[in-house]
Formats: sequence, structure tokens, C-alpha cells
Amino acid sequence: MQSDIEIANAAVLRPIREVAADTLGIAEEHLVPYGHFKAKVDIGYLTSLADRPLGKLVLVTAISPTPPGEGKTTTTVGLTDALHGLGHRTVACLREPSMGPVFGMKGGAAGGGWSQVVPMTDINLHFTGDFAAIAAANNLLSALIDNHVHHGNELDIDVRSVTWKRVLDMNDRALREVTVALGGHANGFPRSEGFDIVVASELMAIFCLTESWADLKKRIGDIVIGYDRSTKPVTARDLNAHGAMAALLRDALAPNLVQTIEGAPAFVHGGPFANIAHGCSSVMATRAGLRLADIVVTEAGFGADLGAEKFVDIKCRKSGLRPDVAVVVATVRALKYHGGVALADLGTEDLDAVEAGMVNLRRHLTNIKDVYGIQPIVAVNRFPTDTDVEIARVVDLVAAEDVRAFPATHFADGGAGARDLAEGVLAALEGESPYEFSFTYDDDLSLTEKVEAIATRLYGAGLVTWDAKARRRLQRIERDGYEKLPVCVAKTQYSFSTDPTALGAPSGHELHVREVRLSAGAGFVVVVCGDMMTMPGLPRDPSASRIDLADDGTLIGLS
Amino acid sequence: MQSDIEIANAAVLRPIREVAADTLGIAEEHLVPYGHFKAKVDIGYLTSLADRPLGKLVLVTAISPTPPGEGKTTTTVGLTDALHGLGHRTVACLREPSMGPVFGMKGGAAGGGWSQVVPMTDINLHFTGDFAAIAAANNLLSALIDNHVHHGNELDIDVRSVTWKRVLDMNDRALREVTVALGGHANGFPRSEGFDIVVASELMAIFCLTESWADLKKRIGDIVIGYDRSTKPVTARDLNAHGAMAALLRDALAPNLVQTIEGAPAFVHGGPFANIAHGCSSVMATRAGLRLADIVVTEAGFGADLGAEKFVDIKCRKSGLRPDVAVVVATVRALKYHGGVALADLGTEDLDAVEAGMVNLRRHLTNIKDVYGIQPIVAVNRFPTDTDVEIARVVDLVAAEDVRAFPATHFADGGAGARDLAEGVLAALEGESPYEFSFTYDDDLSLTEKVEAIATRLYGAGLVTWDAKARRRLQRIERDGYEKLPVCVAKTQYSFSTDPTALGAPSGHELHVREVRLSAGAGFVVVVCGDMMTMPGLPRDPSASRIDLADDGTLIGLS
Repeated sequence: MQSDIEIANAAVLRPIREVAADTLGIAEEHLVPYGHFKAKVDIGYLTSLADRPLGKLVLVTAISPTPPGEGKTTTTVGLTDALHGLGHRTVACLREPSMGPVFGMKGGAAGGGWSQVVPMTDINLHFTGDFAAIAAANNLLSALIDNHVHHGNELDIDVRSVTWKRVLDMNDRALREVTVALGGHANGFPRSEGFDIVVASELMAIFCLTESWADLKKRIGDIVIGYDRSTKPVTARDLNAHGAMAALLRDALAPNLVQTIEGAPAFVHGGPFANIAHGCSSVMATRAGLRLADIVVTEAGFGADLGAEKFVDIKCRKSGLRPDVAVVVATVRALKYHGGVALADLGTEDLDAVEAGMVNLRRHLTNIKDVYGIQPIVAVNRFPTDTDVEIARVVDLVAAEDVRAFPATHFADGGAGARDLAEGVLAALEGESPYEFSFTYDDDLSLTEKVEAIATRLYGAGLVTWDAKARRRLQRIERDGYEKLPVCVAKTQYSFSTDPTALGAPSGHELHVREVRLSAGAGFVVVVCGDMMTMPGLPRDPSASRIDLADDGTLIGLS
Repeated sequence: MQSDIEIANAAVLRPIREVAADTLGIAEEHLVPYGHFKAKVDIGYLTSLADRPLGKLVLVTAISPTPPGEGKTTTTVGLTDALHGLGHRTVACLREPSMGPVFGMKGGAAGGGWSQVVPMTDINLHFTGDFAAIAAANNLLSALIDNHVHHGNELDIDVRSVTWKRVLDMNDRALREVTVALGGHANGFPRSEGFDIVVASELMAIFCLTESWADLKKRIGDIVIGYDRSTKPVTARDLNAHGAMAALLRDALAPNLVQTIEGAPAFVHGGPFANIAHGCSSVMATRAGLRLADIVVTEAGFGADLGAEKFVDIKCRKSGLRPDVAVVVATVRALKYHGGVALADLGTEDLDAVEAGMVNLRRHLTNIKDVYGIQPIVAVNRFPTDTDVEIARVVDLVAAEDVRAFPATHFADGGAGARDLAEGVLAALEGESPYEFSFTYDDDLSLTEKVEAIATRLYGAGLVTWDAKARRRLQRIERDGYEKLPVCVAKTQYSFSTDPTALGAPSGHELHVREVRLSAGAGFVVVVCGDMMTMPGLPRDPSASRIDLADDGTLIGLS
């Protein structure tokens, strides 16, 4: 079997200006090329499309993730290829990969098999420089904070309260907790600090929720970096940092256009974490896609309890975007895993386990229909060990929920493998949805009530409890006028509960809130339940030791 | 008077593909565009030019720098424009600006007035991502070092001896001295660490001395990151980091092509510090220029005692490149300053001071002729307050040294203001040089003798002394087999001595070596005389507070 990079390197790419013109009708003058196969689409041009009608929006989400992986990105790409192949003007909207994991264990994030976006190596390394720009803007604010304190601290910043952290796009555990400004008078006032990976930064979330240059600068200005000695919030605007930070992000804000292996267009733009942030690609890209294409296929992070919830309650709430269909990716293996089968035994046929594991998928489908009010379709991403009987059983079980399921083999077969799924999606888009879109909670609820709504309506939790410190923090956030913001729950993606081993569909559990963080620029309050890793480490044998550059410039070992 | 950014923004740029084709004969297929006005030139294409004859190489250097600035970059651009205007196929080779100072005090580094390279804002912010790539590769090595120690430290690295530092392209004093890996077992072994600005990194120097992808990987492998417990050097190759680091720099290694305001081509590529590194733009760019153009105009850092010395003894020694003419930039104001006039009085005519300050320029000219064996020409960069009599006196004083001097007004007048200078350069290039190129010292001298050669032959020093610690470090470097490397002296640029207030041409002083550092990948030994700042700070009122992004995307406040 060919590796992802072998397939990607063997693909014959069309110049991106041809892809842009033929698939989306974008004239070359509106492209800002980055090499011959990547381009940003000019923001001025996109602004000029404001009167165009919007296309249909397909949200790809999933069952609760399991270790073997469900293939949400490949399904997004495969479905796009299939729709494109059927003659529908379709564009995928994906997240940009972080470089950190490329050198660690996880590898890149440009799809896989015959459902990839290309040029794969470019997308996984540097790409168009967006993440570097976000890191620079983020770290400029950090430098300005310490500089302000060093030069007299006119704002009376309490350095013990600074929550704004520096970032790097690197898996580097040694930077999780550091002490900065050591070495005496010339180097400033020492304080505790930590580095997050770029994708975990509030600035990444801001970048992905931003609608325009003006909105970008406004949101950056709203960032609360910490508090002064009288516990008043200090913003990036107070430090006069927002203009320069926005300037650093000027070009990055334009969506990046690439192509799939089969020549369909794809926007790959922005990539916030799906735990402490909302986990979707940029609003700029989604909106551009909806103006330029008839169908936009985009993915949310993790399972439908986290990624789709944030897509609905954060991204849709703020942008006004509305998904027309939700494609829920499931696999026979994931169902068996949720049905209690051990990892090593997932290749063995087990219909009882499939049925048992259906409780997980069923709750996600119920949430999507009854809470978000979106019409769901299930994509059964088929793996080689799945039996026909197992696949048929999944389709039947899903049908019992009044939902259609379509087996798909896009990983092995590209767009042709997702043809049935595409036709199912088209049928759903053409029909009238029996559901009415809604949010999980209203803006006007208190932050506590919002968390309770998510916990009880979506997770099946019995109660929500709060650390005393988290409760105090929440009160301060409410005191400061941020109580109307939506909440962003950071918890394990492996379970509806906060216990990653509680598979299936646990009920009546306790959701314990350990920590609360304010992302005032992004416009949400992060509610942390459990330990959140915002700076990954490298494994004992990192991918970096296999990645190489041949003398002729060929890149080796990326996955 | 128009500001630099006003002039730059008003310039009418030609698409870079047209500039490349018309001025250097590069077909569009060999360009990798970054937007419409920046492009990298494909390395495969450049390699295919290996049989082409080399053009002439003009090195722009200067008198010892003074606070008002001498205008070396503007002279490089102005001279290029003048030669271009006279119909000679000419290209400038410049360093890339660091973003750190853009947000600090110094501002950008794309020339000034009517002698600029454009697009100015792009060049000063992010550009084509080279510095971000260098930072990522640098910090990957750091992460791999701490990761190796965390996972068992098979190489027995002595963490107290690690000299490889993390980097950011930011002025951030709080990162100069930090403690990393705090927070317990999961975060690694705590150690002292510091961040340098990207331009101060050894990797930047490697990048600029590299000849090919294979050479890049080899040099990176040679980097000594520290020592093991038995004091044996540990290299990036030992950590198996060099392949992934080279992969991260694959695309960055191709030279960046832009244009001057007057439409001449300019390579802007790489930008190492001129104190702890060699201070020249990349060998890749210089060599590309020499294959593609008849004349390459490039600049070295600081004055001729530092920048030109390193250009000769490091860049030329390693690459085989040879300058045909050295243009020495001087100003009436700098001569008066070296002649003892206070900063506030530099606008007042003072012929005696001009004559007194000539000692500085005279020693530089003598060094260039007698030590480096390069034919010098003096560019007298004229400022509005200079009087005709002063200018005439400089020309006469220079003539007494058997060197021709040409007043130039390119800052105000563009290429037309450097027309006489260009004709002088052309005459020198056409004639036979009376000098024979040579190095300041031979490879075979000991490191101590090399430093003594520079100190006595160029600086006029009476003796070289060493800190005991520096001496021990030198001995270890010699023990490890690096004694054949050239040396890179890091000292103040304001004086031939290590005392920045010793203007003119001090003699018989002591050169005290405080510290010695090995840059094994770059291929030189850094000899630090005095305090070297490798991470700048921000001033009380940084430029960042004036840089802004307007709602329509216009960048404001860059200088």
C-alpha cells in the first residue's frame, strides 16, 4: 500500500490559478500566489462578493473519537471530490495543520490515502506562513506586556495575574512552565510564564472567527491579558498593541486555496484547538466558499458533542452561518470500541458490539436533530477489516433513528468511494429539513446555566460542580461584563463525560469544572473540565528523526 | 519631505515576473511567486547555471559607523539603480530585515528615501517566511535536545553545557535569561536557557554560507549544541535532528527576488548579525546574482574592519567568491564626528574636523588596499547640511590616498544621484586592479594567531589578552579539531578598538577577549570582545504603538 506522501507526491497538480478559475470562477488577478499550487484569495475581492447568494453548508462531524481514528478529514475531502465529480461546484474548508505534531507523533493533517489536499508537504510545513504570523503577533503582545512593566508599569499590571502566554508552533514540553526575565535589572521583572502551541492560542481562535480587517483589530483590542492591582482587566488595547498585531496578520487573514488530489478546490485556513478553542477553520474561508461555490463541505473538531457544538454555539452564533446538513462520520471499529471491544480485537466481526456501541452514535444523532436542529446523515467510513454484515447492520441501526447511512471508501478509492454519500447529501440538501436550527442555549442565560445546558442536554450529565477557584474566576468574569458570551467546554473528546474511559453513552455523571478562562477577543469563556494539554511534547522516537531532505531537494518521511 | 513608507507606497511596481525576465532573463517557470511582487528563484534552475561565467562583484562597506548613519544600504540600492540606468545588467544583494527592530526603535531595513527595495512593507514583515523557517528549525533542535534528555539522555548530554539557544524574531528582553522545563516530571529537566533574536543565531549564519541543500544538511549536522559529561562535543547529527531541520529550510534556501523603486532587480536573502556572525546576505543569492547579472552590488555589515573583514575572511574564504571593487561609504558628518565634533554640531561646516576624522577612513582604505587587496572607491553620501567645500575637501583627502571619491545624492535623487559613483565603479571594473586579493590570515595559523593578525593588522591594537575562561574554551575548541576555522570577532562597530568612544583611529590598544563560542556548522569561531546583545529589548515608546492596520487593509506607521 502506498503511503500518504507517496500518493501525494505522485499526484499531478494543476496550477492553482487554473483550479481557481475553472472550479470557482476566480480570476487570476484576485489570487495572491504562494508558489504555483497555493494561493491566497484577495480580501478586497471577497468583500466585493457580499451580494452573492450563499451556497449550502455541509458540516462534517463524528462519533466520539477512538484510538484507530474515524477519518473525518478524509471524509470531508472524499465527499468534496465526489460532489465535484458529480458536477456540483463544491469547495472543502479545512483546518491548517500545526507543524508541532508533524515532528512529533501524529504527523500532518492534510487528509490521507486517496482523499488528500495537496501539495501535502507544503501544507504540513510552513504553508503560507499564517501560523508564523499568528505566533509573531501573539509574541509581540507578550513582549509589549513585559516591556510595559519594565518601563514603569503605568497600567499597574499585576504580573502575577498575566494570563497571556507566549507561543511556538512546536511540540516542546520544556516550554510549558518557565521563568522569564531573569538576569537582573536590564532584563525586566521576573515572572512565571508558559508557552502554548500556536493552535492553542486565543489569537488563533480570534483569527478563525474574524470577519474583516476591522473586526480583527477590534477583537485583538478586546483581548484581556490579565489584571491590574485593583483587579481591573487590562486589554491589548490598553497596551496599544492591537494595531501592530493586526498589521502582522493583515495578509494571513486571506483564505488559502489549494486543491484535492482529484482537482477539487479546498480552502485550508486557520486551525484552533477543539478543546480550549472552537476547533473550526476560519469564518473568512467558510464565507468565501459559500459565496463562490454551491456547496461548502467543512469539518468540526473531535466528536459532535464538542466540535459540532462549538461550530453551532460559537461559530454559527457569531457569524450567522447555518449548516444545512451534518455528516456524522462513524466506523464499524469505533462502534465496536464503544460497545466494549478491546483495541486488539476490533478486526474481528462482532455484531453485538456494533449494536452496543450504537448508543454513542445514537446520542450524537439525537443531539444533532433535537438540540442543534440539523439534518444528520451518517458516513460509515469503511476499513478493510469491516465485514459486509457489520456495515449492513450499521446502516439498519442508523435507519432506525430515522437517519440515512452511507458506506464510503474514499480513503482507498477517492471521490468514487464517496459517491453514494454525496448523492445522499444532495438529496438532503434538495429536500426540506424536518428540523429547525437552534442553539444549545440562549445568550441571556448566565454562564453557569450555559454550562448546565450543554452538560445536561448534550452530555447526559446529572450535575455540574465547580472548583472554588473556578467559581471565583467565573464571578470575576461576570462582574467584568462578559456574562453574555458563549462558553467553550474543554474536556476529553473520548467520552460524553469527563472520564475518557467512559465509552458509549454515560448518563447521570458529574461534570466538574476545574478552571475557567476568559477569551474576550475570541468572544467566549473557556470552561476547563479535566487536564488540558496546551503544549504537547515529543515522543521518545519523534517523527523528526525520520524526516529528511535529499540532496536533490526531495522531502522524505512526512506523513 | 516624504517618509520612506510614503515613497514606497507611491512607487509603481512591475510584476516580479516581468522584472525577472527583463532584467535578469529568468523565465517565469523558474520563479516561485510569493504574491505578485516577490519571488524565489528555483534552486534547480540556479544549479543549471553553473557553467555560466561570473559577473563582477562590488562590495559596499563603510567608515566606522556613527549615530547619524552613513547610508550603506541606500548606497547599495542607489548604485545598483545607477548601473541599471546606464544599461548594465546589475543586481543588488541585500540582507533581509529582522522583524524585531521594526517594532522596536530601529525600524525596517529596505533602504530609504528614493533608494529603496519594494514592496517595503512585505519585506519588513514576514517577507517570504525565511526567518520563520529558520526559527522553526532552530527551535526544533532545542526541543529535540530537551526531549532527548527527558527520555533517558542516551548521549549523556551535560545540560549545564548546552550552548544552543532558542530564538524568536522579536525584541524581547524578558527572554534573554529564562529557566525552562519547570513544573515537574512531565515537563523535563529544568535548566538555564536563553532566547536570541533569529538574526543572531548560528543557523542564520549557516543559512547564509550554504551552497546547496546537501551542504545545508551537512552544516546543520555539524552544529555543536553542547558537550556530554566526558566533555565530548554533541552535534545536531548525534541527535538525528539535521534532516528535519534541513527539510524545514528547503524552500527558504532559494533566494528572494524583489525590485528597487527604479525597477532594478534585488536579491534580499538572509540576514545574520555582523558581530557574533559574519553579517552578509546569502552565498546562494550572491552566486545567483553573479550567474545572472554582469555586476552584483552587495553590502557587508558595520564598518570595513568588521563587515568587510568577515566578508573577505569568512564568506569569500569559504565560497571562493572575490570582490572586484570595494565601495567605502563615508559622510562629511561621520568624518567630523570621528574628528571630534559633537553630535549636535555636525550640521556646522568644519574643515579641520573633516581632516581630523580622515584618520578613520584612511585606516579603512589602507586595510582594504593592503590587507584585503581590493581596489577601494569612496562614496561620499551627501546630506543636506554638507557644504560644497566640505565635500570637495573629502574628495581631495581621499585622492591623497590614491583613491577616487564620488559624492552621491541617491537618497534624494535615486539612481541619478549615484551616476558619477557608478561611472567610477565601472572604470575601476574595466581597469586592472593594482591590488591582489588576500586574506587577513591563513587557515593554518592557530586561532590565537588569527585573532592577533586581525587585531594588529586591521585594528591597530598593541596586544590581545584573554579571559581565563575564554582561553580554556579556546583550548577545548582546538582540542576538538576546530583550529583550522576562521575567526569571527564580535566587538563594538563604533571604533577600531573595543571602546566605542575611541573614535578616529586608535592605536596600541588592548583587545581583550571575554568569551569564545564555537559555530561549528557555520564554520567559524566567535571571539567576543565586550558585551554582545543577542536579544534586543523594546524602548519605552516602541514603534509597535504607531504601527497600525486601517480598515481597508492599509498598513500604517512602518519606517
